[in-house]
Amino acid sequence: MKVAFIGLGKMGSGMARNLLRAGHELTVYNRTRDKTEVLAGEGAHVADSPREACRDAEAAITMLADDGAVEEVVFGANGIAGTLHGVHVSSSTISTAMARRLSSAGHDYVSAPVFGRPEAAEAKKLVVVAAGSHEVVERCRPLFDAMGRVTFVAGSEPWQANAVKLCGNFMIASMLEAFSEAYATLRKAGVDPHLFLETMNALFGSPVYANYGRIIADEQFEPAEFRVKLGYKDMRLVLATAQECSSPMPLASLVRDHLLSALAKGQGDMDWSSIARVVAGNAGL
Amino acid sequence: MKVAFIGLGKMGSGMARNLLRAGHELTVYNRTRDKTEVLAGEGAHVADSPREACRDAEAAITMLADDGAVEEVVFGANGIAGTLHGVHVSSSTISTAMARRLSSAGHDYVSAPVFGRPEAAEAKKLVVVAAGSHEVVERCRPLFDAMGRVTFVAGSEPWQANAVKLCGNFMIASMLEAFSEAYATLRKAGVDPHLFLETMNALFGSPVYANYGRIIADEQFEPAEFRVKLGYKDMRLVLATAQECSSPMPLASLVRDHLLSALAKGQGDMDWSSIARVVAGNAGL
Amino acid sequence: MKVAFIGLGKMGSGMARNLLRAGHELTVYNRTRDKTEVLAGEGAHVADSPREACRDAEAAITMLADDGAVEEVVFGANGIAGTLHGVHVSSSTISTAMARRLSSAGHDYVSAPVFGRPEAAEAKKLVVVAAGSHEVVERCRPLFDAMGRVTFVAGSEPWQANAVKLCGNFMIASMLEAFSEAYATLRKAGVDPHLFLETMNALFGSPVYANYGRIIADEQFEPAEFRVKLGYKDMRLVLATAQECSSPMPLASLVRDHLLSALAKGQGDMDWSSIARVVAGNAGL
Amino acid sequence: MKVAFIGLGKMGSGMARNLLRAGHELTVYNRTRDKTEVLAGEGAHVADSPREACRDAEAAITMLADDGAVEEVVFGANGIAGTLHGVHVSSSTISTAMARRLSSAGHDYVSAPVFGRPEAAEAKKLVVVAAGSHEVVERCRPLFDAMGRVTFVAGSEPWQANAVKLCGNFMIASMLEAFSEAYATLRKAGVDPHLFLETMNALFGSPVYANYGRIIADEQFEPAEFRVKLGYKDMRLVLATAQECSSPMPLASLVRDHLLSALAKGQGDMDWSSIARVVAGNAGL
Repeated sequence: MKVAFIGLGKMGSGMARNLLRAGHELTVYNRTRDKTEVLAGEGAHVADSPREACRDAEAAITMLADDGAVEEVVFGANGIAGTLHGVHVSSSTISTAMARRLSSAGHDYVSAPVFGRPEAAEAKKLVVVAAGSHEVVERCRPLFDAMGRVTFVAGSEPWQANAVKLCGNFMIASMLEAFSEAYATLRKAGVDPHLFLETMNALFGSPVYANYGRIIADEQFEPAEFRVKLGYKDMRLVLATAQECSSPMPLASLVRDHLLSALAKGQGDMDWSSIARVVAGNAGL
Repeated sequence: MKVAFIGLGKMGSGMARNLLRAGHELTVYNRTRDKTEVLAGEGAHVADSPREACRDAEAAITMLADDGAVEEVVFGANGIAGTLHGVHVSSSTISTAMARRLSSAGHDYVSAPVFGRPEAAEAKKLVVVAAGSHEVVERCRPLFDAMGRVTFVAGSEPWQANAVKLCGNFMIASMLEAFSEAYATLRKAGVDPHLFLETMNALFGSPVYANYGRIIADEQFEPAEFRVKLGYKDMRLVLATAQECSSPMPLASLVRDHLLSALAKGQGDMDWSSIARVVAGNAGL
Repeated sequence: MKVAFIGLGKMGSGMARNLLRAGHELTVYNRTRDKTEVLAGEGAHVADSPREACRDAEAAITMLADDGAVEEVVFGANGIAGTLHGVHVSSSTISTAMARRLSSAGHDYVSAPVFGRPEAAEAKKLVVVAAGSHEVVERCRPLFDAMGRVTFVAGSEPWQANAVKLCGNFMIASMLEAFSEAYATLRKAGVDPHLFLETMNALFGSPVYANYGRIIADEQFEPAEFRVKLGYKDMRLVLATAQECSSPMPLASLVRDHLLSALAKGQGDMDWSSIARVVAGNAGL
Repeated sequence: MKVAFIGLGKMGSGMARNLLRAGHELTVYNRTRDKTEVLAGEGAHVADSPREACRDAEAAITMLADDGAVEEVVFGANGIAGTLHGVHVSSSTISTAMARRLSSAGHDYVSAPVFGRPEAAEAKKLVVVAAGSHEVVERCRPLFDAMGRVTFVAGSEPWQANAVKLCGNFMIASMLEAFSEAYATLRKAGVDPHLFLETMNALFGSPVYANYGRIIADEQFEPAEFRVKLGYKDMRLVLATAQECSSPMPLASLVRDHLLSALAKGQGDMDWSSIARVVAGNAGL
């Protein structure tokens, strides 16, 4: 397929590369042009604006930082709205409200956020969650297959995929909070967090637990895998979705507050697992 | 070794059987005698009281419901205190305060609570967390090896193992709360919880998530794997430990409150994952 | 002074009347015209639009339901922006973000939200909290004096008054939550909530406690003094302000969740003190 | 009446003095004898033990620090159980569980905890909450009238009065939490807490708000009116009562956690309103 790919950050670069590898014809755009060079060397065309990138595209994939960035790329001065004839595939982690707005931009639209870190994006191991009308989702399936190891379809309304993505990030954040509280208590009980981590690895057998459990046990919050700022944004967004649905999520509020504390204490660029520091501080550690 | 095993509930029966299989000489005691018969057929001696069971024992293992039951078996009229010459191994999920009391009963003492369900006990797949003086823990290691697939040593004070066990149950309870909140929001968003569960299985890759995530998605809270009553007890105990350590655990308080609500609504004998019903109710479901 | 008054709901009518009584020349506007009639009979001019109302006004006071209504009256088709030469006094309970937007509408601006119920508005017993540049606040002081029993100046930035108003409503909401929890426990302990209320009246000596404590003890949530919908909006707004300030407010989140539950259970038009019903429900009552 | 008064701390001294003033014949006992001297000078007999103090007493009033102190005085070596022929009036702030235990000590028993600070005790301005069998409560009424400005009867089971007392302290603690959160947000918004306090005084009109609101605005947490240690104890006790009643109190858990944090940070001897420091810390202040 002829694909425009907009947003070549750590995640986007890997995703774009896998589209090229799968034989799709790619035109890329990034706000700072230097990030496009490697992909150009691998066969991608480079465009000067989102609008130019999507001119002949059957699909335009956006992988951007937040609602604001997506809004600019879609509805801004050189945005894709009005030019794109194909389908817009939004893989960014955005609000369900923004997804609804993108649904009504005048072109076909699919939300297809992804789970996975940059290494997983590079290795075609992402988990894709798509939602939208059946026909449009199926049309995009070759793209999802090129970028991820598995694709789940959340429903026929695009924003439902974003709800799933946000709730998934909430699941991870809850695990961070749980580790933070358990470690704080155990440290005060004289038990080594690493001993507890080994036990939890034996119990849960999950690489996500192993990875974040180790970061927190080591208190190695820099460099960040996923920054407090972004985690805070996601918890705000999941709470916004929950409120749209009239569904209280007290645990999400608790984690949001600890991320907000981390922000207030200057930890915005640390890994979001550094809420452990806030929790430990509340225990006098 | 000559071993007394006291408490032949679902967990204890499997553990005792694996001790027999490993060649230990077992004397068993259970409050209701009928549960001893199968093990008697497999070679265990049967005693009429804890005291009698432990008379010649090198080790007495207790696997009982709660603090009260352990107190009775150790300090009660026919209890083991004063008679036992070997080491007392407490595998029950009890409070850290009770563990400290058991430490000073006049015989050697090790806390060795276990993670795993009855099937895991039967299949010698338990995770054992032991704590106590190095020499005594090592003396008991053949017993741990006979009952579990792996043993972790939490520290030199027995109650530290109980702190680890309680914090581990808290980790599971936190996951239940997270699933409950995510499912409630997604149900109101028109997304099938099973779709979310599949996504989380792809993300976390944990059998614990797969198991409890399915129970909650199916809303199949009976028969209980682990009852609300017991989960509530454990959350009370982890909070008691946290307070001994001056370490706030707000997520543990949140889960405790949802378990308490479940109790108040008559769900005491349902699976503890039925806090999902409380959470869904708060969303008007 | 020549004053435009926009928004003649329960609160606005009383406030406008007191401005008339104090000798100010009043032009009123309300979306539904019938509410203007009584005031017309008392000497007010009636305008057909906000813009017309404010044409010669030295001050335009708005007392409206929410951010959206204020936005429409200020920036909408027949809005006051561009026409008003005097100062805009916003007495509505709005977000701090909206207050900042109103500050930059091109005319002088003061936030002056009020505390008090409709009877207090009628009886000139409101508490006024004003903020804005010193000169502009002082120019409006005769208006505040005409409408309230006391005026506090929160700061030189208008939105600071809205922060105070929202935090004040949060203080009341916290009291509702506290009563709800105490009553639920005491009812289950067989103690009459009215007995507790009398005790609290002796202890706190506050008419606010007496009023809301009675409503909750009587479980008389209709007709509403202040609806769940509005209370929920205010808790959302105070949390938005708190997040702008990077200041976690876990108690505000807790109350927000109980109001959201009340909404989800169909209590949107009951008094906001009906969070007591949510709390009691969680205790199995 | 012939009255034994046991426990001459800040509260007890004032209460005992008012009993003397009202013409009752008083025998006092205190663990450290020097505190008995002033009252001896005012006409009280001094005993060497609780048992001796209550030998001929029609009523024995205990006003002690906690469950442990009351247990010692009642059931200890020189305790009143077995000797007292009159009624035991427990005015201490104790657990509902301890109150039930005192009910079955073999003599008549009334729980009569009080609200008010030492100055109020001295000035006969306490609020008394009594519970017990009607006949016994009425027999003690002259004593209540001598010590307080008003007496409320909570029920026929003594522990119900303790439930009311604990819930009353929870109401105050909730107010502390609410002030703490509002002040933190407002300080970060550049608003002087004292301005907010004045507004709240105009709104609530409560001396309790005025007093604690000022302490927190001034951040003057020493000397303590009521120490963090004691506040923490009371929140633990109200949560214990709530759990006996299967009634979740999430706000009580929140405050308990902030008091626990304060303890962990070394604020145990500061005023309990110093939870404001924990809350401010979480906002990065």
